[in-house]
Amino acid sequence: MSDRAQILTSFVPVATDSHFPIQNLPYGVFSRPGEPRRVGVAIGDRILDLAVLGQAGLLGAHVATVFAEPTVNAFMQLGPDCWRAVRRHITEVLGADCPVLRDDAELRARALIPMAAATLHLPAAIGDYTDFYSSRHHASNVGAMFRDPAKALLPNWLHLPVGYNGRASSVVVDGTPVRRPNGQMKHPDRAMPDFGPTRKLDFELELAFLVGCGNELGEPIPISQAECHIFGFVLMNDWSARDIQQWEYAPLGPFNSKSFATTISPWIVPLEALEPFRVDGPVQSPEPLPYLRQSGPAAFNIELEAWLHPDGAERATRLTRTNARHLYWSSAQQLAHHTVSGCNVSLGDLMGSGTISGPTRDACGSLLEISLDGREPVTLADGASRTFIADGDEVILTGWVEGDGYRVGFGQAAGKVLPALPMAT
Amino acid sequence: MSDRAQILTSFVPVATDSHFPIQNLPYGVFSRPGEPRRVGVAIGDRILDLAVLGQAGLLGAHVATVFAEPTVNAFMQLGPDCWRAVRRHITEVLGADCPVLRDDAELRARALIPMAAATLHLPAAIGDYTDFYSSRHHASNVGAMFRDPAKALLPNWLHLPVGYNGRASSVVVDGTPVRRPNGQMKHPDRAMPDFGPTRKLDFELELAFLVGCGNELGEPIPISQAECHIFGFVLMNDWSARDIQQWEYAPLGPFNSKSFATTISPWIVPLEALEPFRVDGPVQSPEPLPYLRQSGPAAFNIELEAWLHPDGAERATRLTRTNARHLYWSSAQQLAHHTVSGCNVSLGDLMGSGTISGPTRDACGSLLEISLDGREPVTLADGASRTFIADGDEVILTGWVEGDGYRVGFGQAAGKVLPALPMAT
Repeated sequence: MSDRAQILTSFVPVATDSHFPIQNLPYGVFSRPGEPRRVGVAIGDRILDLAVLGQAGLLGAHVATVFAEPTVNAFMQLGPDCWRAVRRHITEVLGADCPVLRDDAELRARALIPMAAATLHLPAAIGDYTDFYSSRHHASNVGAMFRDPAKALLPNWLHLPVGYNGRASSVVVDGTPVRRPNGQMKHPDRAMPDFGPTRKLDFELELAFLVGCGNELGEPIPISQAECHIFGFVLMNDWSARDIQQWEYAPLGPFNSKSFATTISPWIVPLEALEPFRVDGPVQSPEPLPYLRQSGPAAFNIELEAWLHPDGAERATRLTRTNARHLYWSSAQQLAHHTVSGCNVSLGDLMGSGTISGPTRDACGSLLEISLDGREPVTLADGASRTFIADGDEVILTGWVEGDGYRVGFGQAAGKVLPALPMAT
Repeated sequence: MSDRAQILTSFVPVATDSHFPIQNLPYGVFSRPGEPRRVGVAIGDRILDLAVLGQAGLLGAHVATVFAEPTVNAFMQLGPDCWRAVRRHITEVLGADCPVLRDDAELRARALIPMAAATLHLPAAIGDYTDFYSSRHHASNVGAMFRDPAKALLPNWLHLPVGYNGRASSVVVDGTPVRRPNGQMKHPDRAMPDFGPTRKLDFELELAFLVGCGNELGEPIPISQAECHIFGFVLMNDWSARDIQQWEYAPLGPFNSKSFATTISPWIVPLEALEPFRVDGPVQSPEPLPYLRQSGPAAFNIELEAWLHPDGAERATRLTRTNARHLYWSSAQQLAHHTVSGCNVSLGDLMGSGTISGPTRDACGSLLEISLDGREPVTLADGASRTFIADGDEVILTGWVEGDGYRVGFGQAAGKVLPALPMAT
């Protein structure tokens, strides 16, 4: 074993392909039957119960109680220095050489819970939710389909990270069923709009970050400080009804087409865990305005996949494989732009990247792009085909960074589609 | 005095032009120096301290504590039946013939606080904030200026209440100064965007309602039930930076141009207080789809004004006088549409009407429309002129319904503009 491996090995067994080695330590909220929600970190196939660790006096007085809360918000409130200190501390406690938990069988039994025996919940109380549109390939693909192929990218796109306010109330955690929405849509060959279940239910493969500390109204966050405000990242499926979207979106943006559900993964991967995996993002030309200029590698080399598992099918089919490094605008640029007007962001705010698409169809983050708006169906593993998502289909997002002999992963953000409610048309 | 006057007169003196007669009884949150925030209702130039009334056992055990909270949310949580019962009860306690408070000098001194001695706060913890676009004149005027005069109203506008998700964190209460935002804008004759303080700072005169009880995700609110979910109404100024908006809004809608501040009035006028002032809204043609069909008068005859008071000027100038009856889409239609996808709205959500404009320029709810995007300046009372809002200007929105010898009013939603922060350009 190398020095690195000796330093970063836990006494908790972690499979090579596990998303949750000691290098990750993502925060989540879990419960067991009859017990209240509390905060833990994932390690291998276990959850380290931080409420128990706090009660046992192993985390320091100032954080002893925050992990007994039903969201990570109280912990985020303590600020970046505390996040770093707690992460160091947990890394130590879980380390192969540290006897405190390793050799205390009673405490270990209480503090290390099989993940399979726990229910995972929405990890944070979401404040405002903003969704950006930061993948150039995605923006170009959608622009070509919804508007004009000759002017696929709108004139503002290369100058600012376009974003919009999303609907926070319908953000749900991995595993929550998603009801197919009813809504208005209009076919080009009909005079009047129709009402009914969307016929173009889609997923959007995104990465999102949670704001861990905010800014005061009227006081922008400079780009050099922006990453200090980021607590960590999750996977996000921004479910979309394309026919509803196409009809409603002008001039104020998507509304009912996206407000019915947004699924996030339960484990918040700390920014610190992703630090070793920084890479250069796409070259930005024209050069951004000064408030958006950032030095150093601003993207992350995160492999991302979306899978589709039809009801009753033997296995899932991979719909796409892409990478977060395709994002043209970085999280820091998004946050600097968001607040440059004086807008205040707050602890618990969720910021989506926008659909992440690479240069080829099999690297696109939505069925709209993969099936070319339904013109080229995707063939599934069992021989069936899809243009958009069918009732009973489960869409599963996953993602990870590949370390040297380990993976820092996000787990998954999955949701199964229920049929639409019957409604007066 | 008529029977009506005998029934609906308070022992608290109320001036004829007061916004807060016994027919109104709006809820707000206030504090006095060194004391915690709590809930009260406005009556004349006083605030009835509901926390004191609750402690005195005058409001029933189930609501005794909710008014000692720093927002109305805990009261809203009790539901529409309780709101009605409490309103009846307060009406009785404040009635000219009721001795309970009238003849108890000690309790009266504690419970009736001069409004001038109190600070008013944001009345509710805002959850999600949605802004609609429900005035046909406004949508047509903006469409003609931002897009194509020949196609001013987009094809979807007559079929659904267009709306978008707003930024909840920057909703502030009447009296909060508003910092002029910096941002990107692009002049048509330049190749690249500029950065700097907005040159087109505008107001938007809106009415907004607060959701008092929500729906579960996946369970739409039928239009027949929609008004039961409305707690009450406030005035709202959706401050807008038109040059930033014009550059950023395609394709996902306004973002930084509106996220820097949204001002609401401090008193939430209950829906019940507005019931006697229902009127028919504009005729809806084509007939809306079934889920948006509503019977009976769905608009309210609310007079609305916007005033501008330059720093140091002797008096304010009225910029507009309009009426909420111009709204094409009703609050019930907005709520039915918002949830038809299954989207869940929650207690504390704020729903703006969109800028309310009448058919003439002096009945328009924004300077964009009044000054024709700056081409026709407005002359102020002191001889100065404005195309958009200048630093130091205070914009004051007010509104009321005219009863028989009384006014049910909203007070005001005002904000004074501070100069932009210096920033790297």
